[in-house]
Amino acid sequence: MQAEYARTPFADTSLHKVPEALTDEQVLFLADILPTAYEVGVLNGTVGPGDVVAIVGAGPIGLAAVLTARLLTPSRIVAIDLAGSRLQRASQFGADTTINNSREDARARIMEMTDGLGADVALEAVGTPQTFELAAALIRPGGHVANVGVHGHSAILHLETLWIRNFTITTGLVDTSTIPQLMKLIAEGRLDPTVFATHRFALGETMTAYDTFADAASTGALKVVLQGSAAAAPTDRVAATVG
Amino acid sequence: MQAEYARTPFADTSLHKVPEALTDEQVLFLADILPTAYEVGVLNGTVGPGDVVAIVGAGPIGLAAVLTARLLTPSRIVAIDLAGSRLQRASQFGADTTINNSREDARARIMEMTDGLGADVALEAVGTPQTFELAAALIRPGGHVANVGVHGHSAILHLETLWIRNFTITTGLVDTSTIPQLMKLIAEGRLDPTVFATHRFALGETMTAYDTFADAASTGALKVVLQGSAAAAPTDRVAATVG
Repeated sequence: MQAEYARTPFADTSLHKVPEALTDEQVLFLADILPTAYEVGVLNGTVGPGDVVAIVGAGPIGLAAVLTARLLTPSRIVAIDLAGSRLQRASQFGADTTINNSREDARARIMEMTDGLGADVALEAVGTPQTFELAAALIRPGGHVANVGVHGHSAILHLETLWIRNFTITTGLVDTSTIPQLMKLIAEGRLDPTVFATHRFALGETMTAYDTFADAASTGALKVVLQGSAAAAPTDRVAATVG
Repeated sequence: MQAEYARTPFADTSLHKVPEALTDEQVLFLADILPTAYEVGVLNGTVGPGDVVAIVGAGPIGLAAVLTARLLTPSRIVAIDLAGSRLQRASQFGADTTINNSREDARARIMEMTDGLGADVALEAVGTPQTFELAAALIRPGGHVANVGVHGHSAILHLETLWIRNFTITTGLVDTSTIPQLMKLIAEGRLDPTVFATHRFALGETMTAYDTFADAASTGALKVVLQGSAAAAPTDRVAATVG
């Protein structure tokens, strides 16, 4: 959202008090991508210690999945994407292995690193039939596919091979119930979401901020932060992201 | 299985002692259909008290799902099938409502009885793309589809409508870990699987038994029981089903 003031109906049910010690930027990404990746991806997918976690898509949601999957100490986090630049970012965020599936066979690589079994959990963080079907093809018997992507089209579910594999697929929309939990982790230094903020602008520079975000390929923008001024607001605790 | 004697390797891991008080017929259906429907359908689908449970397919596995779903006291069990004779049997087994989807719109009926929300759990007990897709279309947001059917073809998964519905799909193959639990329920009179046995034959009448089973449409056979004789075996605890 981009606003200096906002009226929030039923605020008690969805707003959380930010501890004084935390900066705006530390909590900014709790508004959406962190709880989405954590609840709909990591928790629905039941990521646990020792798991091999394959994350299909290394955009902001995929990166948030890398960050929050690490809270459960998987043995290996594998990021899969078509773009080398996004995979490089995934490594910076903590992915142990990256697979560029524009030129590598992601399934073959995952099978190779799991003794032919497959990943314990595959997180779909794109929202296309192809990436969903890839995620479903990556998991081991007993594994989970947690769909985080927003889909506009149906996908093929290969029941002829999957029916026997004790397979769980979940989909979902974030309800942000984990914001207090994630905020505590940020306050205690266990989670640092400020790595998402690649650019910062004042509210008056909003149009430049949008241009920077729109041209991410050349600016390298991941999340672009708009900062409110102390003069314009009752407190200086105003921040927003573009896009 | 049809045998008077059988050697079972690693028997300690898969055989259970039948209490003296139970008859062969009481435990016969624990070999497959009851734990399959219970584990892969009812437990994977997380059926619970008060749920509306839609069971797609009222063959033996669907009927076993009706029987074992009742252990969790859903508010309503709805059986869906194309054949009136199977639906009649489902009512006898404890289905509260039946829908013949050769002439009724199953989804519209389920929505009508759930204030437009859908079933809490849908169990797929056939194994075709059509029945899987129907099961997926029946559930409410937050609902579960538990696939029990054995599939030879892929199905369409309508992610464009399902992604936002906090949806869980499971598939699986029975591991029979619930046999001791189900046997206890039978011994205490909480579960009566003998309703499956519609015909009984001696081992010498095996060919007639097969004919009876093969012509189920006119014989009304559900499960056909072969009974061993006490003279032929060290104990008289020998029984098997045809098909």
